[in-house]
This record gives sequence, C-alpha cells and structure tokens, in this order.
Amino acid sequence: MADVSAKRQRDPEATKELSHQTKTVKTDCENGRGESENETNLLSGFQTTIVLSDSAREKNIFVHGKLADQNAVVILEKTPIREDALADIFTASTLKLEMRNDIYSTYRLQAPPHLNEIKATLVCPATEKHVNKYQRQESFLVEETAEDYQSITLPYIQKQSFSVQWVYNILDKKAESERIMFEDPDPELGFVLLPDFKWDQKQLDDLYLIAITHQKNVKSLRDLTSEHLPLLQNIFQKAKEAIVKHYSLPASKLRVYLHYQPSYFHLHVHFTKLGYEAPGCGVERAHLLADVIQNLQADPNHYKTRTLYFPLRADDGLLTRFKEAGRL
Amino acid sequence: MADVSAKRQRDPEATKELSHQTKTVKTDCENGRGESENETNLLSGFQTTIVLSDSAREKNIFVHGKLADQNAVVILEKTPIREDALADIFTASTLKLEMRNDIYSTYRLQAPPHLNEIKATLVCPATEKHVNKYQRQESFLVEETAEDYQSITLPYIQKQSFSVQWVYNILDKKAESERIMFEDPDPELGFVLLPDFKWDQKQLDDLYLIAITHQKNVKSLRDLTSEHLPLLQNIFQKAKEAIVKHYSLPASKLRVYLHYQPSYFHLHVHFTKLGYEAPGCGVERAHLLADVIQNLQADPNHYKTRTLYFPLRADDGLLTRFKEAGRL
Repeated sequence: MADVSAKRQRDPEATKELSHQTKTVKTDCENGRGESENETNLLSGFQTTIVLSDSAREKNIFVHGKLADQNAVVILEKTPIREDALADIFTASTLKLEMRNDIYSTYRLQAPPHLNEIKATLVCPATEKHVNKYQRQESFLVEETAEDYQSITLPYIQKQSFSVQWVYNILDKKAESERIMFEDPDPELGFVLLPDFKWDQKQLDDLYLIAITHQKNVKSLRDLTSEHLPLLQNIFQKAKEAIVKHYSLPASKLRVYLHYQPSYFHLHVHFTKLGYEAPGCGVERAHLLADVIQNLQADPNHYKTRTLYFPLRADDGLLTRFKEAGRL
Repeated sequence: MADVSAKRQRDPEATKELSHQTKTVKTDCENGRGESENETNLLSGFQTTIVLSDSAREKNIFVHGKLADQNAVVILEKTPIREDALADIFTASTLKLEMRNDIYSTYRLQAPPHLNEIKATLVCPATEKHVNKYQRQESFLVEETAEDYQSITLPYIQKQSFSVQWVYNILDKKAESERIMFEDPDPELGFVLLPDFKWDQKQLDDLYLIAITHQKNVKSLRDLTSEHLPLLQNIFQKAKEAIVKHYSLPASKLRVYLHYQPSYFHLHVHFTKLGYEAPGCGVERAHLLADVIQNLQADPNHYKTRTLYFPLRADDGLLTRFKEAGRL
C-alpha cells in the first residue's frame, strides 16, 4: 500500500519552494483568513485537480488542487467515533433504513456536523514532491507460472542486480550489529534476527522482526527446494525460542512468513505479532513459513513448479515486463 | 487485531433467541418503524451498556446496550470519503482552524450531514454470543492437524450446529434478493454473488462481495476435494466475469479467497479489491482460491490431510477444546 501518512516532508525542495514563495503564501493561500478565520471556509475556493490517494478503510483522501492559483494538497480524514459522543449521536441523528434480514438491519445515519467532524490538513503551496509523496500507486495481481519466472522474472532480477550490500553489512557486523537480538552463526543453517525498521520496539503490539540467512545463494521462495528444509526448520525453531526468551511472546502469538515477491533478493523471514496488521501480511503476498515447510515436504520442487500470485505496483519495472510479455 | 467486522454469526443461540422472540422483535426492536421508518430515529431509545471495541484507524465502534428492553448491538462506522462528494464538501462545510506552521495548517471541518453519513448496523435482539463476538479479544494461532480436525474441530462444529438460516434465506430469495448482483442457479455448481455487509457499495475502493454456493453440504475448506474443482472453477470464472461486467474491475484488481476457520459453515468465497486491506485478508486466515484450486489439482485430498493454521479468539469455544486437548 502507498504510504499515505499525513506526516510532513523532510525534503529540501519543499523548504526551497517555501522560502521563494513565503510572500505569495501569505497573500494567496491565506486569502480570506483573518479575524473571522474560524468561521470562514477557506476551502470553498479549492479546485480539485486529482485525487492522489484515498483509503476506504481509514476514511481519508489526499487531494491535489489549486487554492487561489497556488498548488495545494488537502488531506481529509474522518475522525474516530468517541465513546463520549455516543449518547448525543444516538439522540440527535436521523436514520435511513437500508436493509433488514432476521435480527440484522442496516441504516445510514446522519449526525449533526459538530458530532461528526472531519480533520482537514492543508499544504499550501505544495511542491511536486508533496504531490508525488501522497500519490498512490495502483497495484495489479500478477500470475507467475514457473515458465514466467524463468523467462520474465529471473532475467529481470539478474539484469537489475539489486544491491543487497546493506544485508551483507548486517551479516558481517559492519552495520546495525547492536540491533541483532539473536544469531546462529552457522554458514549453512544460521541466521541473524533483528528488529525491522518499522518497529520502534516501544511495545509488543506491533512486534516485527526479520531473520536473515547467512547463506547467500537463496534469492527467494522460488529458489527453495526440500534441500532447504533444515535451514527453514532451524530458523523457525530457533527464532521462536529467541522471541519467547527475549519478549516472553509464545509461538501462538506470532505470524511467521516469507514475502513473494520479496523486497530484496536474499532469503529472509518475517516475524510479526498476530493481531498486528503489518504491511505485507496479506494473503496476496505472504506465505506462512509453516506452509512453506509442508509444501516442500510434500513436493521437493513445489516452488520451482507452482504458479505464484503477487501484487506489483504500477511503477514497478517487473510489471512492465509482464505487460510486454502479454501476461497481464 | 480483534475481528470487529460487522459480519454475521454462525451461532445457534442467535436463531433460537430469534424464533422465541420473533413477536417481541416486531413489537420492541421495530418499535417506531413503519411507514415513516426512514425518517424516525429508532436509535434515540438506545441505552449504551458498554463499548465492546472500537478502532481509531477504521473509525468504527461496537456498542452493546438496550433497545426497548431488548439486548442489542449497534455498530457505527464512518463512511469513506467519496471523490464525487468533494466539491460539495469543500463549498458547503464550515472550517475551524486548529494549527498553522509554515506551509501546513490543520482544521476541523464540519460538513452537512447528508455529505458525511455514518453506517449503522443494528443487531436486535442480540444474544450473549453476539456480544462476545464483537468484544475485542486476543487471538492465538492454532495448529490443526488432520487428526485434530476429526477429533476436536468437527465434533465441536457438529455439537454447536451453528445456524445458517440467514444463508438459506438468501439462497431461497426470502431475504436480500434485491442485493444479489449475480446468480448461477445450478444446484451443484451454482452460487449467488452479493455485496458483503461491510461494503456500502458507494465506491469500488473497498469492494467486498461474497459468493455463496447453492450446494449445502460443504462446510469449509476441510471438506473440499478434487470433486469440488468444477464448483470452485465455476465460482472463480463466473464471479470474475460478473464483476468485470458490473463494476469494470478486472481480475488483476481482485483478491479472491476463502477463510479458514470460516465465520459460518456453508461454503462461501470472498472477493475483495486488491489494495483494500479487508479484515480477514491476512495470511493467517485467508486462502487464495487460485491456490486452493492448484492444491486440489496436485493432491485431491490436500485439505483432508494438511495441517492448517488459523487464529482463534480467546473466547472461542473451539480454542478451549484445543487447550483441553493439550494442543496449545
């Protein structure tokens, strides 16, 4: 999923543009704001150019447009429903029946505006970098047969020769060595276990660890055969033990999986807390390690022969290759 | 995350209570609903007992309370922000400035109620099982071998004899017939396709459809063998065609999967939009239909013999059985 967080930009271009246009900002974007600012509607002059992204689940939308001839981005996000507003919402709203079946019925509820606010964030003037940042990339589900892997994906990976130097730096203790929470140094079966960047380690609710193999010749799930069962079982077993020991979190609270496609082509396994909806834990990209092990036990060449499904972003070079090959 | 979806229940208590109380339902829960139902506010009489769960991210809340002396559960969820409503929201709303810093400013926006609806779902009368279902609960990952299914899960399902009367109502056109968007009436291979409760059908971003088989003797993934390949392929193919035709959404934008454990034991398939992080689409519970088909093609008894993994909530009776059997 696109990063649609409304946080501010660290990019120098934004500041440059800001300093160029400070005066314009005051005269244009702030036009109509003054003493009575709280009661005016600055956004009534906003002209939408395009919706950059939105989330039906999170009830937000990122819109690029013009505000008094300035480029602007407006972010709207509905506010959480607060317990202390419930009684007022129930008594002061209007209901429209939509559907009834047995004991279940659904309605559209219209609440007084002050009980149902929308959070609005305005970035004005917005730079091109802001716009790109908030732009969502569509994803497409790709069907990759074993032949597609050989003729499309593998040549693409090899040609790109994606660098995994940062992985080697970790394995060689040249970087992030203080972050390693467990290591099995065996060159064939061993791995390092360390927190993923996404986890701030402040609470266990969103625990996210990565096990990276010392073995360097397994690019992804596609390379795995029954020969790798000892490696996979070793990671599964020892990482779970380390997590129980370190965080008192039993295996029954863990979701352990591989990605296909992975973000980088050096075998690694994700350990996230069950119940935390970690990015990339969806069925379209994640493969439970326990299933991977069973699949290889049942068929040593399972991942050499199976059709695999995964999402690719519209701007992914690999998607272009699949389209060129008439596979989408 | 707790499963806080507004989906329906598999549980006998609900129906039992329903049949005992049909009259009461009509006189109590439906009190005030009639000719002018669309304009009255049934919920103004709702007395909150406790908030069962809520999500600041998803802007929903699950509330247990009383409605005219009946136990009831009300689920409120704010609706997604639709692009076609943006212009009206911008012009017809009131803004209250909260914060300004450089090019960034934030506001509370108050929109006219009809542009900012809340989806309300009422379950009345609600049973204790409903209340427990919506109560936020910890989950545990269960490992179910083929033997566990026979000795623990299957007896539990049979003993509970979860009612799927509401499913039969749909199949028999006794309820929700106007919501059916596609049907293949074949008694062996056929199915109905209709929007899931969670989807308000206002935008495609969170498209969520369910295909329910006419065939009544398949409880779940565990019952599937290669004999069911024609059924599964028929659903896969015809539902995708119906979705392209109806919504102009190609198969490459769909995530098509089964749940194990399912919420109710009558075979059904989930169709959600790729990119929409639908509740229950995580790798720990979802099984891609394309993979299910491949698995059955490779081994007709795949789901009869495999160990399957799934999360169970702390209050799930099935989890208790697994614990009693020393399997957790």
